[in-house]
Amino acid sequence: MRVLGIDPGTVITGWGVVEVRRGSMRHLASGTIRAGRGEVASRLGFIYAELGAVLVEHVPDAVSLERNFLARNVQSAFRLGEARGVAMAAAAARGVPLSEYTPATIKKCVAGHGGADKAQIQKAVARLLGISQRLAADEADALAAAACHVLRSGFEARVRAASVRQKPAVRLGAVIRARVLG
Amino acid sequence: MRVLGIDPGTVITGWGVVEVRRGSMRHLASGTIRAGRGEVASRLGFIYAELGAVLVEHVPDAVSLERNFLARNVQSAFRLGEARGVAMAAAAARGVPLSEYTPATIKKCVAGHGGADKAQIQKAVARLLGISQRLAADEADALAAAACHVLRSGFEARVRAASVRQKPAVRLGAVIRARVLG
Repeated sequence: MRVLGIDPGTVITGWGVVEVRRGSMRHLASGTIRAGRGEVASRLGFIYAELGAVLVEHVPDAVSLERNFLARNVQSAFRLGEARGVAMAAAAARGVPLSEYTPATIKKCVAGHGGADKAQIQKAVARLLGISQRLAADEADALAAAACHVLRSGFEARVRAASVRQKPAVRLGAVIRARVLG
Repeated sequence: MRVLGIDPGTVITGWGVVEVRRGSMRHLASGTIRAGRGEVASRLGFIYAELGAVLVEHVPDAVSLERNFLARNVQSAFRLGEARGVAMAAAAARGVPLSEYTPATIKKCVAGHGGADKAQIQKAVARLLGISQRLAADEADALAAAACHVLRSGFEARVRAASVRQKPAVRLGAVIRARVLG
């Protein structure tokens, strides 16, 4: 399984690809798309094109995105939404399924707790994927989203597998537990 | 000059093309893109593809969009931003310059006052472009954005032309008047 994580932004968009092979996860490629400070429309067009190139080069099976619930204000929500929309359309255009995770879920996945700060995420991602070079913050966030999808997919698959073997009441319990853990 | 107006939405996206020939504006084509109620990513991918087809078919010289400042809440700003981002990226991908106007400017342009309601916009657009068939609300909004760009471009060109002939103080006055009128 190959997963592309994206941390969309109209100025800097981080991206990172992780791969699972023989049960272990490794870093395949990552980087940042710097759309500059020009007009918003041309920046969005650039991001769409660059993400398209990443999707074509790395052919991921899934795209993972941070689901934002919060923004400083309605204006920044509009701006962030525009970058997210472009990332989602780029994935959909290539038929790659998209999963979204809340920031807290991603942080818990990679750093063990939902309140981890930027520096902790960078360290945790580097350790998790055995990366020695310095990661840009948006690159680390994108890899965190990708790693989270891998870890959660495995977790959910195990819950599903366990559920099949159990009685309905227990199955419901397992699902509730999964939600609480998530 | 040919202008494509877009009223982006993750459920329904309105679009409309107007053309200026020998100083008069006419309706060329318009419609709605109904992305359904599926997953947001696939809806956005669909909108991107459909707008791409409209851009290829009608080859506009400019794209005009309503600039939103308001949303019911941060969540709807995110959703609306996603649809807007896709529309902007689609225009940028084909190198078509984009202009944005506030809802009040568009309403004032086509209906004469900034507080016009949906029904008044539909009527005003139909009258302005000589359309007899019934327009969908989002289709009328898209045509209003397109018509506004045409009317404003003409107005601004006249202001610019007037400014060149006048002294700096008067030129400033003209610009201020243009802002107030806009």
